[in-house]
Amino acid sequence: MSAAEPIRIGVLGRGTVGGAFVELLAARADAVEEATGRRPEIAGVLRRSEGSYDEILAGSEIVVELIGGTEPARDYVLRALRDGRHVVTANKQLIAQHGDELFEAAREAGVQIRFEAAVAGVIPVIRVIQESLSATEITRVFGIVNGTTNYILTEMANTGASYDDALARAQELGYAEADPSDDVGGADAAAKMAILARLAFHTAVGLEDVSFEGIEAIQPDDLAYAKQFGLSLKLLGVAERHEDEISVRVFPCFLYSGHPLAPVGGPFNAVMVESPSITEITMSGPGAGGTETAAAVLGDVVSIVAGDAPVHVARERLAVTGDVQSAFYLHLEVADRPGVLAQVAERLGANGVSVRSVVQWGIGDDARLVMVMHQCAERDFYSALGEIGKLDFLRAEPRAIRVIEEEFG
Amino acid sequence: MSAAEPIRIGVLGRGTVGGAFVELLAARADAVEEATGRRPEIAGVLRRSEGSYDEILAGSEIVVELIGGTEPARDYVLRALRDGRHVVTANKQLIAQHGDELFEAAREAGVQIRFEAAVAGVIPVIRVIQESLSATEITRVFGIVNGTTNYILTEMANTGASYDDALARAQELGYAEADPSDDVGGADAAAKMAILARLAFHTAVGLEDVSFEGIEAIQPDDLAYAKQFGLSLKLLGVAERHEDEISVRVFPCFLYSGHPLAPVGGPFNAVMVESPSITEITMSGPGAGGTETAAAVLGDVVSIVAGDAPVHVARERLAVTGDVQSAFYLHLEVADRPGVLAQVAERLGANGVSVRSVVQWGIGDDARLVMVMHQCAERDFYSALGEIGKLDFLRAEPRAIRVIEEEFG
Repeated sequence: MSAAEPIRIGVLGRGTVGGAFVELLAARADAVEEATGRRPEIAGVLRRSEGSYDEILAGSEIVVELIGGTEPARDYVLRALRDGRHVVTANKQLIAQHGDELFEAAREAGVQIRFEAAVAGVIPVIRVIQESLSATEITRVFGIVNGTTNYILTEMANTGASYDDALARAQELGYAEADPSDDVGGADAAAKMAILARLAFHTAVGLEDVSFEGIEAIQPDDLAYAKQFGLSLKLLGVAERHEDEISVRVFPCFLYSGHPLAPVGGPFNAVMVESPSITEITMSGPGAGGTETAAAVLGDVVSIVAGDAPVHVARERLAVTGDVQSAFYLHLEVADRPGVLAQVAERLGANGVSVRSVVQWGIGDDARLVMVMHQCAERDFYSALGEIGKLDFLRAEPRAIRVIEEEFG
Repeated sequence: MSAAEPIRIGVLGRGTVGGAFVELLAARADAVEEATGRRPEIAGVLRRSEGSYDEILAGSEIVVELIGGTEPARDYVLRALRDGRHVVTANKQLIAQHGDELFEAAREAGVQIRFEAAVAGVIPVIRVIQESLSATEITRVFGIVNGTTNYILTEMANTGASYDDALARAQELGYAEADPSDDVGGADAAAKMAILARLAFHTAVGLEDVSFEGIEAIQPDDLAYAKQFGLSLKLLGVAERHEDEISVRVFPCFLYSGHPLAPVGGPFNAVMVESPSITEITMSGPGAGGTETAAAVLGDVVSIVAGDAPVHVARERLAVTGDVQSAFYLHLEVADRPGVLAQVAERLGANGVSVRSVVQWGIGDDARLVMVMHQCAERDFYSALGEIGKLDFLRAEPRAIRVIEEEFG
């Protein structure tokens, strides 16, 4: 196969994720070509009512399965593997229920099957467990692997809404399906935990090995009382190894506020991996969403084509600029006399720097003035700071520290 | 090369990380063999006063460079690459200052150079940027990439300690070196950000492109005042792309409490990667430490040998157990009469379940009893719960929800 030959990709399914993948592939074709040396090309897209699987298979080097469910996905994927095609799938049920059969088929044919998007969306938990930590003794993998339930629980905790109202809101926003039972009952998280347990513990784990509970019975007053103990509620998946036994469970669970998963709110997912040699790694990010899932699928496609770790190529020539925006904290020690704040504020204003909050403390004849600015061009702030530094009522060098204004998640 | 041939690994350097790597490799030899099909074998360890580099090179397939600094590390690594050896290194200065030369040598020889351990220890940020996100348009990479300064700032904020006292404490605990200037002055973080910017933006970034400030000038009262604005202080590395320009900076910086990096305390590191198609991924974990760095190095070694993504093999046969420990929250609606709490507590105690905290509210003739238990065997708790469910003063089904007791970081 010459390096110039395109990567022919057959796409099964044209729902939200399928559509997002086709779009992302087109948008990032140059980047894929730069990363792999070959340009991606859609060999065909199989829709429910359109397209022939056999034709798409015949024209593809990599089959991307985004139909979901077990049949016909299982049949299509098995045939692709047996025919020597690499497969990328976002299908958690397929891997959780038919993993053994699929991995065996891939091994026999000498091809890859990758499924990063099947668990925790774009969070690269599969890659980290299978590659970074493959020689590490993992003792526990746990986390928030269902965004629908995490959104509902966050909403109930923040607004006091009932389970039904929070679910309705999740459905409005597209975070929950019309029939939400797989998500809210814990079956979706159970399938994902079966996959993570299998990879972390190198053992066959089926759906039947995972015990799970959902969040349907949670009452708003459970959340209210728990707040008094400093607890927040999450639907957790927990896979643990104890000597030669493992347990894999999904259950609603309170966390103390110091726990790394406690602040993970809304539809976000987060996974922690523990091992004696790494202590713990925590990874979090958006759990689902068409674009994010498509990005995870694309990462798998590129890895298949790129093979070994890409050696860094400086393919871009970007200029380095110091012309950036920041918000600032400013600490001034000043003589405590009228007009001081006005003069400082005037120097800031004249340079286009706007003040967000200010606190002044009197200390004998002196005062401390602590201000936080809104975001501005750094050079404007430093120009104002130069002028402020020359004001005659200053008692010490001004101290300026940047502030990140954004809040997240 | 037959599949049974051992992986001959030459180790340069026998300091903390070198020692931990040799030990981890021995402990995980079976796991490496299972993951790669080949058993690892130390071809030689080069110490300052012992061993010949030429001999180790001649006997090695992979050279692991753990000397640190730029010379002789650069010379050794270049010679290894040019001689067709794969290289794994934990050396940030080497990659930041001589990356172009090393990547070119690796490309020409058709070998790999991997350096996960050089940035943020065991947090797999290099792999995620280079592999999972290689076709994604990354707009920003930022985070806490120096554990020494994060420990010092956390200590100052929590205890009101001065910079000098917090530094002394960090040195006692082994989080800071005797000469801490590279860490506290920001140069260490700058080298790491140069590496991350290079990989994220596919462009050559040298140390001279990174502007940096350290934390030496931070005063305890800056932290105290900032608390009043809800701010916490971190030494942040920020690499951003704006169209055809990039900026790469390291500076102390306040974060609002809702920011995902705000709770990252002590010697921990955390990195966030942003892109329109993935929104954001946050990864956190221990920043350094001999064992953690050794685990990152071992992950790179295994990836070199394993090549393509490993197909899952169920090499273990672990039993699935339901016999697990949990702590519980218990919500009871009861008649408000004497002896109720005593009877509930008696049923718990008789089953070996101990109460951590309890709150009771009276509501007319009824009361709500909300309790949090210490960790116990789940079957003991459910046995107590069965008995409690039969008590005649209960007004509704008891509600039990698990609680994770651990706190982290």
